[in-house]
Amino acid sequence: MPKLDFWYEFASTYSYPAAMRIERLAKEAGVEVAWRPFLLGPIFKGLGWSTSPFNLQAAKGRYMWRDLARLCEDAELPPFRQPRNFPLNSLLAARVALALDDTERPGFSRAAYLVEFSEGEDIGDGEVIAGILSQLGHDADPLLAKAAEQAIKDKLRANTEEAQQLGIFGAPTFVLANGEMFWGNDRLEQALKWAKK
Amino acid sequence: MPKLDFWYEFASTYSYPAAMRIERLAKEAGVEVAWRPFLLGPIFKGLGWSTSPFNLQAAKGRYMWRDLARLCEDAELPPFRQPRNFPLNSLLAARVALALDDTERPGFSRAAYLVEFSEGEDIGDGEVIAGILSQLGHDADPLLAKAAEQAIKDKLRANTEEAQQLGIFGAPTFVLANGEMFWGNDRLEQALKWAKK
Repeated sequence: MPKLDFWYEFASTYSYPAAMRIERLAKEAGVEVAWRPFLLGPIFKGLGWSTSPFNLQAAKGRYMWRDLARLCEDAELPPFRQPRNFPLNSLLAARVALALDDTERPGFSRAAYLVEFSEGEDIGDGEVIAGILSQLGHDADPLLAKAAEQAIKDKLRANTEEAQQLGIFGAPTFVLANGEMFWGNDRLEQALKWAKK
Repeated sequence: MPKLDFWYEFASTYSYPAAMRIERLAKEAGVEVAWRPFLLGPIFKGLGWSTSPFNLQAAKGRYMWRDLARLCEDAELPPFRQPRNFPLNSLLAARVALALDDTERPGFSRAAYLVEFSEGEDIGDGEVIAGILSQLGHDADPLLAKAAEQAIKDKLRANTEEAQQLGIFGAPTFVLANGEMFWGNDRLEQALKWAKK
């Protein structure tokens, strides 16, 4: 079965619809997906940026918020809600995602995105993350403790370094086994098509 | 009939597949297209950029060249060819496009893009533009003279200012009569769908 790495950032608006859509589309296409959370912050810092390009470029930012609302409408997701702060601190969510096993990661990631972008809650807040974990039937406290361990911190750092080495500069990005890279939620279908070439 | 403004830049790589695809797709969708050439340079300058973001961000640039090759393959266009210099000077092509009438502009624009991105020729060169015009059956010299007139220069400047006021920050951008804006070749289908809502 062809494989695809799904590189996503919990603070990234466009990663949200991709996370909500990828499992159904990949199943239809017969492609196996690995969920790879990483951080864009260190990559943006390498470009000399202190925040998201959507904050640095006002016109691009205004467009993005409207675009996300339309995308959610077209994808039949709940009405998009802009979090009070942007980008939110995604460190905790990414570490928790990596503290979960491969079969639990997608469900947690989707739930976190929904809380962030349809309820507008702050996923940087430990209590919000604990609430998501509990709702999914996880035991929150030991998972939050595991997420704070060095091994998980190292795993996230390694993911982010691998993303940077692959030439990833934004999220979501889909990477095939042969190295072909596709950037953006709107490229998910194309990436799945190329995965089967 | 719903209308859509197609804002394009002759130096813009992603404007090329959009220009090649838009007429067929718009016809199928029953949407009327106005071809609006403009310059991104002044908009980028406003952001403090001296060149294309694809030159300023190496990883994004590398991705773009590969992406364009794949897009042309998927769209069954001739093999993509990277021009020796990027971005090319698009001032002359944009002025000539505006010196032509509305029915002639699409054909000239497509021919210029093909010369630029499938033959790798410099559309900043007056002789290259003259060759394109002649091949299309136009009388090149009077058109090049008209393109150098103040009225045409003003028209291009007005287009660029209008684009900036609309909040356009990249090309291609599709703008509907109600102000809805869609950025990128990969949004053409969505823009046409929304044009009919």
